[in-house]
Amino acid sequence: MINLGMASLRLCAGLAGRRSGFCARSLRTLSGMTVSQIDEEVAKLLELKAQLGGDEGRHQFTLKTAKGTRDYNPKQMAIREKVFNTIISCFKRHGAENIDTPVFELKETLTGKYGEDSKLIYDLKDQGGELLSLRYDLTVPFARYLAMNKVTNIKRYHIAKVYRRDNPAMTRGRYREFYQCDFDIAGQYDPMIPDAECLKIVHEILSELELGDFRIKVNDRRILDGMFAVCGVPDDKFRTICSTVDKLDKMSWEDVRSEMVKEKGLSEEAADQIGQYVSLQGGMDLAERLLQDAKMSQSKQACAGLTDMKQLFSYLQLFQVTDKVVFDLSLARGLDYYTGVIYEAILTQTGPVPVAGAQNGAGEKAEEGVSVGSVAGGGRYDGLVGMFDPKGRKVPCVGVSIGIERVFSIMEQKAEASAEKVRTTETQVMVASAQKNLLEERLRLTAELWNAGIKAEVMYKKNPKLLSQLQHCEDSGIPLVAILGEQELKDGVVKLRTVHSREEIDVSRAELVEEIKRRTSVV
Amino acid sequence: MINLGMASLRLCAGLAGRRSGFCARSLRTLSGMTVSQIDEEVAKLLELKAQLGGDEGRHQFTLKTAKGTRDYNPKQMAIREKVFNTIISCFKRHGAENIDTPVFELKETLTGKYGEDSKLIYDLKDQGGELLSLRYDLTVPFARYLAMNKVTNIKRYHIAKVYRRDNPAMTRGRYREFYQCDFDIAGQYDPMIPDAECLKIVHEILSELELGDFRIKVNDRRILDGMFAVCGVPDDKFRTICSTVDKLDKMSWEDVRSEMVKEKGLSEEAADQIGQYVSLQGGMDLAERLLQDAKMSQSKQACAGLTDMKQLFSYLQLFQVTDKVVFDLSLARGLDYYTGVIYEAILTQTGPVPVAGAQNGAGEKAEEGVSVGSVAGGGRYDGLVGMFDPKGRKVPCVGVSIGIERVFSIMEQKAEASAEKVRTTETQVMVASAQKNLLEERLRLTAELWNAGIKAEVMYKKNPKLLSQLQHCEDSGIPLVAILGEQELKDGVVKLRTVHSREEIDVSRAELVEEIKRRTSVV
Repeated sequence: MINLGMASLRLCAGLAGRRSGFCARSLRTLSGMTVSQIDEEVAKLLELKAQLGGDEGRHQFTLKTAKGTRDYNPKQMAIREKVFNTIISCFKRHGAENIDTPVFELKETLTGKYGEDSKLIYDLKDQGGELLSLRYDLTVPFARYLAMNKVTNIKRYHIAKVYRRDNPAMTRGRYREFYQCDFDIAGQYDPMIPDAECLKIVHEILSELELGDFRIKVNDRRILDGMFAVCGVPDDKFRTICSTVDKLDKMSWEDVRSEMVKEKGLSEEAADQIGQYVSLQGGMDLAERLLQDAKMSQSKQACAGLTDMKQLFSYLQLFQVTDKVVFDLSLARGLDYYTGVIYEAILTQTGPVPVAGAQNGAGEKAEEGVSVGSVAGGGRYDGLVGMFDPKGRKVPCVGVSIGIERVFSIMEQKAEASAEKVRTTETQVMVASAQKNLLEERLRLTAELWNAGIKAEVMYKKNPKLLSQLQHCEDSGIPLVAILGEQELKDGVVKLRTVHSREEIDVSRAELVEEIKRRTSVV
Repeated sequence: MINLGMASLRLCAGLAGRRSGFCARSLRTLSGMTVSQIDEEVAKLLELKAQLGGDEGRHQFTLKTAKGTRDYNPKQMAIREKVFNTIISCFKRHGAENIDTPVFELKETLTGKYGEDSKLIYDLKDQGGELLSLRYDLTVPFARYLAMNKVTNIKRYHIAKVYRRDNPAMTRGRYREFYQCDFDIAGQYDPMIPDAECLKIVHEILSELELGDFRIKVNDRRILDGMFAVCGVPDDKFRTICSTVDKLDKMSWEDVRSEMVKEKGLSEEAADQIGQYVSLQGGMDLAERLLQDAKMSQSKQACAGLTDMKQLFSYLQLFQVTDKVVFDLSLARGLDYYTGVIYEAILTQTGPVPVAGAQNGAGEKAEEGVSVGSVAGGGRYDGLVGMFDPKGRKVPCVGVSIGIERVFSIMEQKAEASAEKVRTTETQVMVASAQKNLLEERLRLTAELWNAGIKAEVMYKKNPKLLSQLQHCEDSGIPLVAILGEQELKDGVVKLRTVHSREEIDVSRAELVEEIKRRTSVV
């Protein structure tokens, strides 16, 4: 508090000469401000400062991206493209169609869907016309899409950015603008078959991305609600107790128990009974045991959830993914709209996985690695589409969302730990010359290559040095150089140089395209 | 006006019983309103109506996307993917890297970059913290990126949505949320080489998309400014006269002349002199002629622009794209930041082009086709990065933006006119059964195929009818069906059915993956 206050004071002193009224207000109201109020005040003052301009009287921009957002540079984009390709291939392998929805929705479309998290929604300014908000996830827009277009059956994926006014720790790969990769199955089907496919997809994607070992926790809202009922939680406390249970991955049981009893007014007996259940983990066997449990079996809801859980595990066995899936009664998940099975995938290693070929060096780095936690989550939401349908018609849905920012963080770390350089272009050949006055010949050849579908670059200089042309190839990993000179032009050939070996051979102009294709084909 | 007024009145009458105060205000202020004010008022009333709910007392959602935005359904996404692949391939062929920036920027980052169009920027609500706006194009965020990261050389592409609070005619493929596909070259290079590459890229993309004939107009801000100077336009009227000239593609010369003289106070002599120049079109010859022109040659600026124009055309000849490029003195382009060459590509056919294989039928439809006009535009902006750099360091830039929504509209029309069905999935095989109680066997085989990289679907029903499984293949274009039965399971084979020919052969389980790959490989 004191440090922040001092910063404000110094800032005010600096500005006092120009706008003393503004600062006087700030000073008067400084006592009694919260930290976040001070943050806002500082941001406003800095903005005012930027508007007033620097010392030279020159307009000074605050050169930054908005809080909680970031640019992707070419290297990050190369990694992102690779990750997306893996994910999209998997979605397509499972026969998914693709849809897209606008980045903002009518504000009312998002209202009442996210519980306590609604305060994190970005609203647009009222500039006349409709009241709009940036999408908070891809699930609610999907449900709106289904209701609006009267779609009752679809298996679709949607990869897009979503927006949350959170205060995320960006070093841990969390942002206010971030990608979600969603796969959902809508339609009335036999129980747990689409649900099992969603888990199979998470298993495939996390395996293929080679992020290290992972675990997929599974539970069911009906089992949770049944458990709360038989443990003596009053009906009106289900949701709030559920969100406390949801903190078990970050808090100890003692702290969770204390929050339930002291903050939320649950009886100690009820809390202790919950404590016994939420410590349970297992597979199909646990579902069978709980179906026999004297207390649990009293709840119809719990029994329905447990029967489905057994069924789910039988399908997961057929899909050969039970090695990573665990039925975990402490999994709760925050969002309001889930009605059945819920799941969450976590990476069980904290650092980057050792990179093949990077030998021992990578192992030492593991300690510094970021902790990434949850990378995918989802569940069944059978009531959400009905909230949008004018006649309340329901469309049962189940889906999964891959939280890809954390995956990017890990992939970036892996790339940095690796000896292999990340290429940011796919250029196959650089058209170069060793002599002067050959710009036109270089441009002509480059256009020939482009027209033949070859990925080619040429320097935008009249007389670049050969060394700087070769250096560019080294820097950006271009494998071949097509070198033109007076002699080559006379002979109707091009000197084709392999960058890594420095070998050079003459190739006739007519055969150049085929030769480049042959040498750069990835077989 | 009268119609709109009546609609408001009817609406008010309907709501009067509930919220008469609101309507009374609307009625009192109705006279003297502009059309857009009335539009806004109507939107507010409709929203109020939606909030008040329907007759049943049930909360009624306005089931729609925000004004000027749309969803993409799977068919539209399949088309979009194809268009993007063509564009991205071209950008990569030219050695471009890829970057991404956040959807919103600090408001001040966008301030003072778009002239009169700034009023179309979407602002976010002030929810505490920074003041933010949705990006209006990809060029200003790119310049901000370069300055912030001190990048002085880059060739990059960026494909993303931008936002403009316009009142677009959506039937003509214009929206408030729309994609731009930008390619830009930043760096200090010899004149017109990167500029020529941008035009080559437009030529390649428009040719490959097969949108029908097109023309690329080229001009230069320095030629325009020089022309204004020698025609006697006062310095302080350059920008406003420039934006009037920009309307020549939509308005007749008479109307443009009238706006210049009557609204903007230009002398009749100056207007007529401008009129003589802006009617000129040509190629390198025109640039040469104007360099000799008694009046034009008095302007140093114009001469610099004309000399570069000659140079540009010489490179375009090497690139073999002069067939579509025309030097057009009426091209002005609205944005403030251009400093040199500017260009715009237009499609010269109004309807969809005749589709190969669709014979005469498509020709008749051409008359109904949408008019799409401009599909790409860009130019040189050497001062924009300097506006962001704390020390005003300049980074010369040139780039082009492909306006893809109009391209989507045309491609959609083509797809509809075509006999060929657009596939929305890539599924190779459907795993089916003719008999009951084979769900587990179907799931097991499907997982085998997924694990082998085959794109496979299976019905989420315990006992689906064979007919409905085959029907799904017909509907979604799945070429193969792998049919399981008791006999096949005993024999260790699968009946592989080709959907279009209805042929069936038995394939041993061990050879199934290879056989599916062989039959579905696109060679």
